[in-house]
Amino acid sequence: MKTEMIILNEERKVTLTAYTQSVGGKFTNITKRPAILILPGGGYQYCSDREADPVAFSFLQAGYQAFILRYSVGKDSVWPNPLEDVEQAMEMIRSRDDWNIYTDKVAVAGFSAGGHLAAAAATMSKNRPNAAILGYAVTGNDVKACNVTAPDTSLFVDKNTCPCFVFATRTDDLVPIKNSIEFIHALEKADISFESHIYAYGPHGFSVGNSGVMTPGKPICNRAYRWVEDSIEWLKDMFGDFGEGEMTEPRCKGHFSGDSDAYLSLDCTIGHLMKIPAAVDAMGPIAEGMNNEEMLKAVSSMQLKGALRFTKVPQHIVDEIENKLKKIPNEI
Amino acid sequence: MKTEMIILNEERKVTLTAYTQSVGGKFTNITKRPAILILPGGGYQYCSDREADPVAFSFLQAGYQAFILRYSVGKDSVWPNPLEDVEQAMEMIRSRDDWNIYTDKVAVAGFSAGGHLAAAAATMSKNRPNAAILGYAVTGNDVKACNVTAPDTSLFVDKNTCPCFVFATRTDDLVPIKNSIEFIHALEKADISFESHIYAYGPHGFSVGNSGVMTPGKPICNRAYRWVEDSIEWLKDMFGDFGEGEMTEPRCKGHFSGDSDAYLSLDCTIGHLMKIPAAVDAMGPIAEGMNNEEMLKAVSSMQLKGALRFTKVPQHIVDEIENKLKKIPNEI
Amino acid sequence: MKTEMIILNEERKVTLTAYTQSVGGKFTNITKRPAILILPGGGYQYCSDREADPVAFSFLQAGYQAFILRYSVGKDSVWPNPLEDVEQAMEMIRSRDDWNIYTDKVAVAGFSAGGHLAAAAATMSKNRPNAAILGYAVTGNDVKACNVTAPDTSLFVDKNTCPCFVFATRTDDLVPIKNSIEFIHALEKADISFESHIYAYGPHGFSVGNSGVMTPGKPICNRAYRWVEDSIEWLKDMFGDFGEGEMTEPRCKGHFSGDSDAYLSLDCTIGHLMKIPAAVDAMGPIAEGMNNEEMLKAVSSMQLKGALRFTKVPQHIVDEIENKLKKIPNEI
Amino acid sequence: MKTEMIILNEERKVTLTAYTQSVGGKFTNITKRPAILILPGGGYQYCSDREADPVAFSFLQAGYQAFILRYSVGKDSVWPNPLEDVEQAMEMIRSRDDWNIYTDKVAVAGFSAGGHLAAAAATMSKNRPNAAILGYAVTGNDVKACNVTAPDTSLFVDKNTCPCFVFATRTDDLVPIKNSIEFIHALEKADISFESHIYAYGPHGFSVGNSGVMTPGKPICNRAYRWVEDSIEWLKDMFGDFGEGEMTEPRCKGHFSGDSDAYLSLDCTIGHLMKIPAAVDAMGPIAEGMNNEEMLKAVSSMQLKGALRFTKVPQHIVDEIENKLKKIPNEI
Repeated sequence: MKTEMIILNEERKVTLTAYTQSVGGKFTNITKRPAILILPGGGYQYCSDREADPVAFSFLQAGYQAFILRYSVGKDSVWPNPLEDVEQAMEMIRSRDDWNIYTDKVAVAGFSAGGHLAAAAATMSKNRPNAAILGYAVTGNDVKACNVTAPDTSLFVDKNTCPCFVFATRTDDLVPIKNSIEFIHALEKADISFESHIYAYGPHGFSVGNSGVMTPGKPICNRAYRWVEDSIEWLKDMFGDFGEGEMTEPRCKGHFSGDSDAYLSLDCTIGHLMKIPAAVDAMGPIAEGMNNEEMLKAVSSMQLKGALRFTKVPQHIVDEIENKLKKIPNEI
Repeated sequence: MKTEMIILNEERKVTLTAYTQSVGGKFTNITKRPAILILPGGGYQYCSDREADPVAFSFLQAGYQAFILRYSVGKDSVWPNPLEDVEQAMEMIRSRDDWNIYTDKVAVAGFSAGGHLAAAAATMSKNRPNAAILGYAVTGNDVKACNVTAPDTSLFVDKNTCPCFVFATRTDDLVPIKNSIEFIHALEKADISFESHIYAYGPHGFSVGNSGVMTPGKPICNRAYRWVEDSIEWLKDMFGDFGEGEMTEPRCKGHFSGDSDAYLSLDCTIGHLMKIPAAVDAMGPIAEGMNNEEMLKAVSSMQLKGALRFTKVPQHIVDEIENKLKKIPNEI
Repeated sequence: MKTEMIILNEERKVTLTAYTQSVGGKFTNITKRPAILILPGGGYQYCSDREADPVAFSFLQAGYQAFILRYSVGKDSVWPNPLEDVEQAMEMIRSRDDWNIYTDKVAVAGFSAGGHLAAAAATMSKNRPNAAILGYAVTGNDVKACNVTAPDTSLFVDKNTCPCFVFATRTDDLVPIKNSIEFIHALEKADISFESHIYAYGPHGFSVGNSGVMTPGKPICNRAYRWVEDSIEWLKDMFGDFGEGEMTEPRCKGHFSGDSDAYLSLDCTIGHLMKIPAAVDAMGPIAEGMNNEEMLKAVSSMQLKGALRFTKVPQHIVDEIENKLKKIPNEI
Repeated sequence: MKTEMIILNEERKVTLTAYTQSVGGKFTNITKRPAILILPGGGYQYCSDREADPVAFSFLQAGYQAFILRYSVGKDSVWPNPLEDVEQAMEMIRSRDDWNIYTDKVAVAGFSAGGHLAAAAATMSKNRPNAAILGYAVTGNDVKACNVTAPDTSLFVDKNTCPCFVFATRTDDLVPIKNSIEFIHALEKADISFESHIYAYGPHGFSVGNSGVMTPGKPICNRAYRWVEDSIEWLKDMFGDFGEGEMTEPRCKGHFSGDSDAYLSLDCTIGHLMKIPAAVDAMGPIAEGMNNEEMLKAVSSMQLKGALRFTKVPQHIVDEIENKLKKIPNEI
């Protein structure tokens, strides 16, 4: 493994630490690697070492190139300085050929205030990551408590937001859990893929949760340390896994429904389809059954395929509807 | 283990299957056992065997007495019939001495429509459970799609709702994930303890997720089957674990903050404290710092103890505030 | 689930408890089930409840039909009474059509003295199980300490012994760990498949290891409770898993090498091949390189395929040798 | 983290790569760290990168200082060159103050031929490690196949051998599993603590077993990758865990019995006690019961405490025997 420390902004003391592994040789099936950019927490006052190397080690072990960004803090944390630091880091990560990185498989992982910054990267940046891991992140308006110039990222979630892995503890006494809840709610509304784990109890800032980062004896539930391994598995679902010379196909798409695809399909939500006259035609009597306000409200976010299965519509009718929908361009 | 099948309502074909284990003897340290009441899914049209015994076995192995309620379905599912069935079952579970049950450690676990019923038990019933496990549950208004008479349970979450363990997959095409999100949001607002896992992808109705209940080959992420073991650990956190003759102390409280305790404390949220003049007095200059609208909005759901630690208020001042708050009765 | 209690031998108080699950219906892909016969421990003086139901629940959850045999103990434990009880149980399990069992997928699981009995079933019985799980089992001569008439099972391991999963703790102060070591050594010599876990520390008789069976506070390492889940996964490797209507192919064979197959192959051990002149011919110059005593001693239990790969023999020569070996009948 | 590459022997191309983490600062409770010295495999012909960094990352994440030794290979591998390399590395690791290492908590981890070298370090070196992890190691006479000058380490296991964690797959076609079995048998005879996992199937050389080191699609059982996490937990049992400023007490001793302690105790094995006349006296009638050849053979490796519990000797007699034994010096 090679270690580099790159100064991104001397004045604001912004540095990028790069831990990069070799490809080929004894790693016969690996020609490039996915990457992760780690954004430690620290209330925009500092960047905590407890959320830097210990996180990097886990992803290095999983085969990633790992980067730690020590972004603008203190008086330099005035917005959009920190986000500009991330843009700069992302650009470098995606352009350095000698780092052997899949440019479309670059994740970001942020914690607490760093989680705010990761969420901003996922929702507001030009050079967006391909996946984001948000740990006990200040994704909502509460960020004002530590950085009055920083935006409420949950308001910026859009169709181009990358898939997110969101975790926190219910009993976080510093960053209220509603931050995470409102953020996943925003992801759901924007049709974005996500995974989320809210553990029953544990302190703010538990990092990877093992004895190397936690002062012993702090009460924390035994599920909380699982996010490391779970997020690695989740990234395999979103990015694919190391295969024979290239990565395998992802097992999970970036959007839940087909509502933003080019053509309609059974994956579209009923609410979406019912707004498009050609789709209503294609659905025929099934659409009629849903055409009262109460029922429509109940089923609008259900995918059509689920509803058809649930109501036991015969397969040949399902196929017929599918064939018709596939020809209808999606007027978004 | 003893097996009994009790007819609760002959006309509506409501039955309670009881799997009960012995206490004492070779189980030297066990004098009573916690219990779980399982409510299978089936869209209020039937009760699925896939969410009955396979769930019971896991909790039996963990030392629980396990019960399966086959509640009113089909034309009998008109509200409040199913909830009445649950009330009847809960009453019997808590009153049968020969079942050796801790009457304050009775959990309910429901799936899909059964998850709706479990949520109703947790929020609306007289004979409330002490904890609820809600699997891909129709907790919201979507329930109308399968039972038009059934209520939106998320509207009934209150301060007396039991702690909940909520899990589902993001890609559930039958019960939209917003059901789970809105339910945990309601729990958060009502200050209730919970744990929640939303797995990236997997079908509706995966039950315990192993090969004994899942048609092989269905795409499901490898975290999804963890809810069984995780919910068992969570119940230990909420109920305590088998100790020497009696259960150990729970590691997690039923409410997040001190906002509903008899006296104020550092565990109260800032939003709550700022509404009580005596508390504002006790906080002194700290309260002043929070007394502008923007800041108050940012910190209102934070516990005071977290805010004091974050702003590095000296310990002797923290102690002073704590002593004052402890004497102030909570005017809820 | 159905519960039956069958009296196998009234005089000796031998009973078989049967926990059997349904097939078909909501378990659409399940037409039959594998089975497990559980033999509790108790030093041939009694059958411990702690190693009965708690074990059964785990395998029931995995989709097995589970049976508990309370075999001859006390003065009735004189050999071969207990083994006869097992024979009788195995015969019934394999012949009762209404239990829907794959007759070639019947495992036995035994603990302590019950582990001795399970090992006897695996090595000495007429009606042998298809796999055996041996927990802190008295497989060696130490059995005399609790049953002077019982045989040292490690001496009976033969080519027809079923695959075994052997676990124990290094610090067992009742059944010395050399029992397990000598038993797996015997399995290795007889070319039998096995998996084995010797955990660093923990008491004798920890059963499934969770709080439902262990008096709290006993020192036991956190790996020890894994045998349950690991043995279930191991059985999938040996038996196959639930597939579409029938079980999938096993992923692991019952013998390590090809030394007992009908024809020779690259899977045979070098020691075996070097004893067969036609094989020595087929191997040509490679055999010559191994034909000195020191080297032969070093490589005799290595499979030929491994040795060829290690010494980087070109693929076309490997193929040539393979083709020749395949035509040579195995003179065992 | 700091990276250093130290040349230990220029001529033989021996290097020590040091990955060292900081102490103090945000790692408030950490003043020093345990260490691990990694010895990659490669048949004494090379040092495989697949068993270098990927292993280091896991132990770094657990809080260890990690070192990779690229020892003498090829023509330089003539014994004792490689062992001298290890001695040199161990000495440096234990003497460099700036690496902040607990000098009595230095483990070694070796794989395949590197596992042979690790076993040699554990049994034959002057500067012995405090624990050894041996992965699919050539611990027996089979080592001659790749290094004819190297010793059979299983013959050197003695009372001063450190605790060992031994893992391999049953189907290893390169290093026969009897290597691991005979090594743990030797550990058992020498009364040394160990943990051992032999997984049902998987190829030789699977390293940490994840997709970053394994060519995809190779058959390997899903337990095999667990050794990483399990060996980390095992090291906590042997070394203690990070506590408040210093490591906590180990949960497991380095020897199984009390047979090599200064004074006798109930932890001694019966075989040991029966050889010491004063102990036989102390045991009184209990010793008499064991004084026939057959019985003695059956119970000799059992600890006295287990035998007394098993035969239900009353507590006051147990206490009496214990008091007497404690005063008898151990004549080893």
